[in-house]
Amino acid sequence: MYETLALVGATGAVGRIVLEQLAQRELPFKRLKLLASARSVGKEVHFRGETIKVELLEPGAFKDIDLVIASTPDEVSAEFASWAVDAGSVVVDESGYWRMDPKVPLVVPEVNPDAVDHHHGIIASPNCSTTQMVVALAPLHRAARVRRVVVSTYQATSGAGLAGNEELNDSIRSALVGQTHPPKTFQHPIGFNLIPQIGSEKHEGYTSEEMKMVYETRKILGDEEMQICPTCVRVPVASGHSESILVETERPLSIEEAKELLGQGEGITIVDDLSNGKYPMPRDCDGKDDVFIGRIRKDISGGNGIAFWCVSDNLRKGAATNAVQIAELMIKRSAMKTS
Amino acid sequence: MYETLALVGATGAVGRIVLEQLAQRELPFKRLKLLASARSVGKEVHFRGETIKVELLEPGAFKDIDLVIASTPDEVSAEFASWAVDAGSVVVDESGYWRMDPKVPLVVPEVNPDAVDHHHGIIASPNCSTTQMVVALAPLHRAARVRRVVVSTYQATSGAGLAGNEELNDSIRSALVGQTHPPKTFQHPIGFNLIPQIGSEKHEGYTSEEMKMVYETRKILGDEEMQICPTCVRVPVASGHSESILVETERPLSIEEAKELLGQGEGITIVDDLSNGKYPMPRDCDGKDDVFIGRIRKDISGGNGIAFWCVSDNLRKGAATNAVQIAELMIKRSAMKTS
Repeated sequence: MYETLALVGATGAVGRIVLEQLAQRELPFKRLKLLASARSVGKEVHFRGETIKVELLEPGAFKDIDLVIASTPDEVSAEFASWAVDAGSVVVDESGYWRMDPKVPLVVPEVNPDAVDHHHGIIASPNCSTTQMVVALAPLHRAARVRRVVVSTYQATSGAGLAGNEELNDSIRSALVGQTHPPKTFQHPIGFNLIPQIGSEKHEGYTSEEMKMVYETRKILGDEEMQICPTCVRVPVASGHSESILVETERPLSIEEAKELLGQGEGITIVDDLSNGKYPMPRDCDGKDDVFIGRIRKDISGGNGIAFWCVSDNLRKGAATNAVQIAELMIKRSAMKTS
Repeated sequence: MYETLALVGATGAVGRIVLEQLAQRELPFKRLKLLASARSVGKEVHFRGETIKVELLEPGAFKDIDLVIASTPDEVSAEFASWAVDAGSVVVDESGYWRMDPKVPLVVPEVNPDAVDHHHGIIASPNCSTTQMVVALAPLHRAARVRRVVVSTYQATSGAGLAGNEELNDSIRSALVGQTHPPKTFQHPIGFNLIPQIGSEKHEGYTSEEMKMVYETRKILGDEEMQICPTCVRVPVASGHSESILVETERPLSIEEAKELLGQGEGITIVDDLSNGKYPMPRDCDGKDDVFIGRIRKDISGGNGIAFWCVSDNLRKGAATNAVQIAELMIKRSAMKTS
């Protein structure tokens, strides 16, 4: 049973949406505790008609907490997770720190829900660019076994939190009056620009963000032989990651079958009518929970390829929504066991 | 001999840069005539210390003109080109109208300079997104035969001319104050957004812009069996097209050899030092003539693949510079023949 819930990082970009989602989806817990670093302690947050004060994230904070949803930087998660697990809590963690730990399930509820049953106190939610791609790949993989993925991303500045969007606005305002705004959050000015680097150099010329898309996708889909070539690019868009994806499958898929599979895929909304100018775009997907897919077509470069365009709100399905869905799933499974 | 030159479309986004380039590169012609539609007739343009008045583009306008550089919409080119050819002029045409005509050479001077010798009065300059890709592919193709290309583009609004950039600025300014600016030049609002459609639906779910990248690349590289899967996307960047490119070659290329080939490629500047945050970005390539390449790495999804990132100023190498280079090449070859 999960009756008490703690939210770590409640005042961040993702934490705010987690709170919205907890209220909207009416998760059946009795008490909510909000935890954050010293800087945010004492702030007041409104939730379901109550005012809750943010408390300090410290070793004793998890007493009597059943379930934790956490959205923090990697180094914060590395420290607090054991405090929570030692106190008997289960942690749904948004950070990158635990995702590739073999003892930690990495879960997208539409894709690998059963993985939540095998945790040792921590369940990880994937990187935003991975989550939406995996939702799209899952139905194709189940039906025809995905062997290869070539993906180029167009990632929003909100992926770097509230500071990312402030910097986008500042950079754009400066550029509009012919000035340069010195970048802090990003490596280079992002207004009217593209930055083909997210994260640091990691493996043979690929960045850490790109390698997350490789390793996390394989882990979630349970297929270590899936080959993935990612290029991750930051674009001057506030909200919503977009991905140009080419998939090759073991069994050839006709375009009709691929469209049918994607259309039936859980968590997927199809927007695909090129002749009438209809396809997913970041501004239309802002604030929505689904993964939106369009421009579905046969790869005309040979192979058993399907090409498509995939957009999702990176703070929702890419982060907050996925974590809340994991919590929902655990509450539901716990209720089934005890009933 | 090419002593008199006419510029058609002198007051457009590309025409202005053609004028700059003609002056900077000191093309050895004796007289310059400026032609445009009735709307621009009488406008005065400064060139090499002279003031030149724009004259009307009409059937008789090409008398005594040796060489024409034209940057106009397709339908304008369809009409005036025969006027020029009938008057004995040679036309270097920027529009899309003549590019795939079997009698018309499609030329990128670094790639297929000899093609200029086989014209019948019209030489075409390729689409902007094709030109920069072909400059990058050429050295790899010569050394190892390119069999397959998967490309996702990030295309600037200046590709739609001066109106495209005005709409980008208006759309961004409106969005910053929470309003929507009704799109005219683009199909949808472009500020803080991405539009995965450039051109109209053309072939099996691909757009006209995407199919230009397929057909024109094959024609320029002289290889009808080259397989290309493009995704063309408009991004909120004013100037500079970017492309995420994956290339498969017949003969496997090591990453060292690929870097060497690209580094020696004509018209290419390498900016490739990920660990120090160095790679091509549109704001850095604005106003430059080269094709900039970085993020060169082995395709980690199998095959003989090389992945890289390619940026170029779409109004320069993608349009004005390439046309002026074609004119230069013709003047040079003509001088060689007569000397």
